[in-house]
Amino acid sequence: MELLEERIRRDGVVKSEGVLKVDSFLNHQLDIGLFDAMGAEFKRLFADAPVTKILTIEASGIGIACVVARHFGVPVVFAKKAQSINLDGDMHTTRIESFTHGRVYDVIVSKKFLGPDDHVLIIDDFLANGCALNGLIELVDEAGATVEGIGIAIEKGFQPGGDGLRERGYRLESLAIVDAMNPATGEIEFRR
Amino acid sequence: MELLEERIRRDGVVKSEGVLKVDSFLNHQLDIGLFDAMGAEFKRLFADAPVTKILTIEASGIGIACVVARHFGVPVVFAKKAQSINLDGDMHTTRIESFTHGRVYDVIVSKKFLGPDDHVLIIDDFLANGCALNGLIELVDEAGATVEGIGIAIEKGFQPGGDGLRERGYRLESLAIVDAMNPATGEIEFRR
Repeated sequence: MELLEERIRRDGVVKSEGVLKVDSFLNHQLDIGLFDAMGAEFKRLFADAPVTKILTIEASGIGIACVVARHFGVPVVFAKKAQSINLDGDMHTTRIESFTHGRVYDVIVSKKFLGPDDHVLIIDDFLANGCALNGLIELVDEAGATVEGIGIAIEKGFQPGGDGLRERGYRLESLAIVDAMNPATGEIEFRR
Repeated sequence: MELLEERIRRDGVVKSEGVLKVDSFLNHQLDIGLFDAMGAEFKRLFADAPVTKILTIEASGIGIACVVARHFGVPVVFAKKAQSINLDGDMHTTRIESFTHGRVYDVIVSKKFLGPDDHVLIIDDFLANGCALNGLIELVDEAGATVEGIGIAIEKGFQPGGDGLRERGYRLESLAIVDAMNPATGEIEFRR
């Protein structure tokens, strides 16, 4: 997606070989106009998919998922990273390892909001090694629901998550795939 | 707001004297159509406020804030609950006590995204004792920015947070104020 690649080139900061900061528009300050354009693009890409629900994971996936969901006319469900006393017992659960935070956490979705009739579009901001997405797929499988597709804002093409998901047959659409970054020059190379 | 009150009456569950579960449409599964109507209502209520930015806190505030922000045409910034290795050093910080999770955590916003020129509308899903909002106000004050107003989906009117903020002179608009709840009958009384 041209608009997103331009924005990454302009405002993204290559911190090191593996770390791309896009916190000015994607995951700390959020550019809602950009999210809206991304929503229209996901709707175009998944136009034929019978999506009934969008699934994401807290926290940075929620904003994109909600703006995208307007284009599909379906609710969002977000997986939570810890048990809250406000949540009932009946949960789908899995464990996810976070590279960013350097730890493993439990992830839960209420069984009330994800079941066998659901056709799920998974939305997230980043795809690197795929740990978060694999966890979300496990939650969908546990629910007996169907993964219709996976929509990602930025995929790090030099990490194995994306290719692994494609090999397993998932319909994965990443709006920008970064194949290489140079922290010395700040240069970013996108997949064509 | 009639639409929200109706929805709370229909789908909210009074778990105990103080706990109202609205996870089927507000903070686990998210009804984006409802959020959009809430956004239009906040825009009507704060039509004269020169809002440049919407501030919220992860996780359950993010979805509402993003859908509301479309109506204001401004970016969202969400305060984060823990230091991430993807965040730079220059942060506004405060501490917030969470009643729901029974603990105290550090909350941060990058100085890049909140500064003296900003006119901030704070958005959150719930207002009870006001701990989260007071923390967000501290972040805005620390940044030298201006609090234009506070927009809340559901205020628990029987807890002191809302009245405290009004007494301090903040422009606070809660779309539904619950004055009493009866866990035996499930009855919910709204402020008129």
